[in-house]
Amino acid sequence: MSVNVLFAATAERWDVYGDLLPAALAEAGIDAHVATEMDPAEVDYIVYAPNSALQDFTPYTRLKAVLNLWAGVETVVGNPTLTVPLCRMVDPALTQGMVEWVVGHVMRLHLGMDAHINAAPGTWEPVAPPLSFDAKVAILGLGALGTACALALAAIGFQVAGWSRSAKDVPGVTCFAGEAGLPLALEGAQYCVLLLPDTPATDGVINAETLAMLPAGAALLNPGRGPLIEDDALMAALDAGHLSHATLDAFREEPLPAAHAFWHHPKITVTPHIASETRPAYSVKTLAENIRRGEAGEPFLHVVDRDAGY
Amino acid sequence: MSVNVLFAATAERWDVYGDLLPAALAEAGIDAHVATEMDPAEVDYIVYAPNSALQDFTPYTRLKAVLNLWAGVETVVGNPTLTVPLCRMVDPALTQGMVEWVVGHVMRLHLGMDAHINAAPGTWEPVAPPLSFDAKVAILGLGALGTACALALAAIGFQVAGWSRSAKDVPGVTCFAGEAGLPLALEGAQYCVLLLPDTPATDGVINAETLAMLPAGAALLNPGRGPLIEDDALMAALDAGHLSHATLDAFREEPLPAAHAFWHHPKITVTPHIASETRPAYSVKTLAENIRRGEAGEPFLHVVDRDAGY
Repeated sequence: MSVNVLFAATAERWDVYGDLLPAALAEAGIDAHVATEMDPAEVDYIVYAPNSALQDFTPYTRLKAVLNLWAGVETVVGNPTLTVPLCRMVDPALTQGMVEWVVGHVMRLHLGMDAHINAAPGTWEPVAPPLSFDAKVAILGLGALGTACALALAAIGFQVAGWSRSAKDVPGVTCFAGEAGLPLALEGAQYCVLLLPDTPATDGVINAETLAMLPAGAALLNPGRGPLIEDDALMAALDAGHLSHATLDAFREEPLPAAHAFWHHPKITVTPHIASETRPAYSVKTLAENIRRGEAGEPFLHVVDRDAGY
Repeated sequence: MSVNVLFAATAERWDVYGDLLPAALAEAGIDAHVATEMDPAEVDYIVYAPNSALQDFTPYTRLKAVLNLWAGVETVVGNPTLTVPLCRMVDPALTQGMVEWVVGHVMRLHLGMDAHINAAPGTWEPVAPPLSFDAKVAILGLGALGTACALALAAIGFQVAGWSRSAKDVPGVTCFAGEAGLPLALEGAQYCVLLLPDTPATDGVINAETLAMLPAGAALLNPGRGPLIEDDALMAALDAGHLSHATLDAFREEPLPAAHAFWHHPKITVTPHIASETRPAYSVKTLAENIRRGEAGEPFLHVVDRDAGY
């Protein structure tokens, strides 16, 4: 019997996934019908982008799971009409993209690259940068993305501290948890990388109080979620010289408006929410695997904890 | 009996090493006398910077080894008065500094960071960079530094090809050797990193012919030695648009004169020979270990092959 998969995302996404997803399902041995329009009563799985028009899941009476196309689920997790398992997108490419952004942007600051990129001709001041052995990075959030970034930075040589809501154990990473652990994670961290989920509990976790826990000259990197930061507190810490730089990929409003102060601050680098993009050629494999699991009666991968919100 | 160690480098170096080196020797259990002036007939070891005034080793009749403070030995290896073992500096910090420079500067180009660093306010073009899975790096030179960089880039996710004079085997790296292997290493490599020693055989290894073996849009990184590159051929490849960028840390003349075209080319980034600096706190441990080995009758570490020139 054929499996019915509704693809509920923008038309631009369908242009990309319309061929890739059926091919990945066929490769996984699944006889599937994939379409953007389908009788709700006949849908087995929904491949879902939270910005799609579909917001009422009530008519999908035989639905087995909603497979999110994105890592972030904050705009769908509270939907009361969604009662089946919701799975986040965790694919190797998504994680890989994040690791590359974090490694690259930490290294840019660590090596003081900008001084060379913008050097006046003849500027020959051969001062070697410090070694990563002597620099600490704090990673807030030890989910799939945070853990991968922590491991990559530790492999390069950094002292890495991780912080998460509940206690985690990551080899080579000093892990802290809960409210009491946050000051310990931030203490002495030249670089602080935000990879927490966006939940009511994490809103504004970076504020005047927590920024003050970082050492003078620290840099903040936010490839996670915009609401993690209290924007005004960040600007104040940069203006006071307490923070040396902020590299931001996620914002409370996106696209970040051209008039926003972040664009105009010399110590802020904006990247346009590109740290972790789903790469369709890789993510269809994750979607196909979860549908295979659903059909085989195996547990789904990456199921969202609805109470925690991620 | 005390071991006599002559420190033959600039006065600035002595300011740093004068305390660190005796301390490291004491920690290694060696009763040593370290000084910048000593009766040549009483010297057991010379800790040596090739730019020191000492160029005639003939009077050092009981010398056991010359321990270079630098990784590069090209200006001392051909000295006919030097007949005892010459050891290169290979310390974890030296290798680490190189790995960090190479990883950071490859990631800068790979992520297209400059577009964001210099973006006009409101530039929101969320195009995710390619993944390292889909990019090839060629590392020319698989000595201690090249091998460490190859492993670090492969660990991040890059496809890494290595090339060396004699065949090497590096896990996770596709290794090529000899003249016939060079085109295979360069083929399809978006990034080419030069970490070959400076020898007559490697002079100008990057020339019009070898640059043409790289794919259009490739970038060259030279943290190795200046003479590896034919400067005019590099400029021509950049001007023709065949190469997208060059990031250079080593030059035929150093400091690189302010009038040199490299400083003024928009597609060239100059760093002032900082990719791999000896860090005294780490390198004294290597020096002490080699003196310990010499006194214990054990083989020295990192002895230079005088015929090969490195």
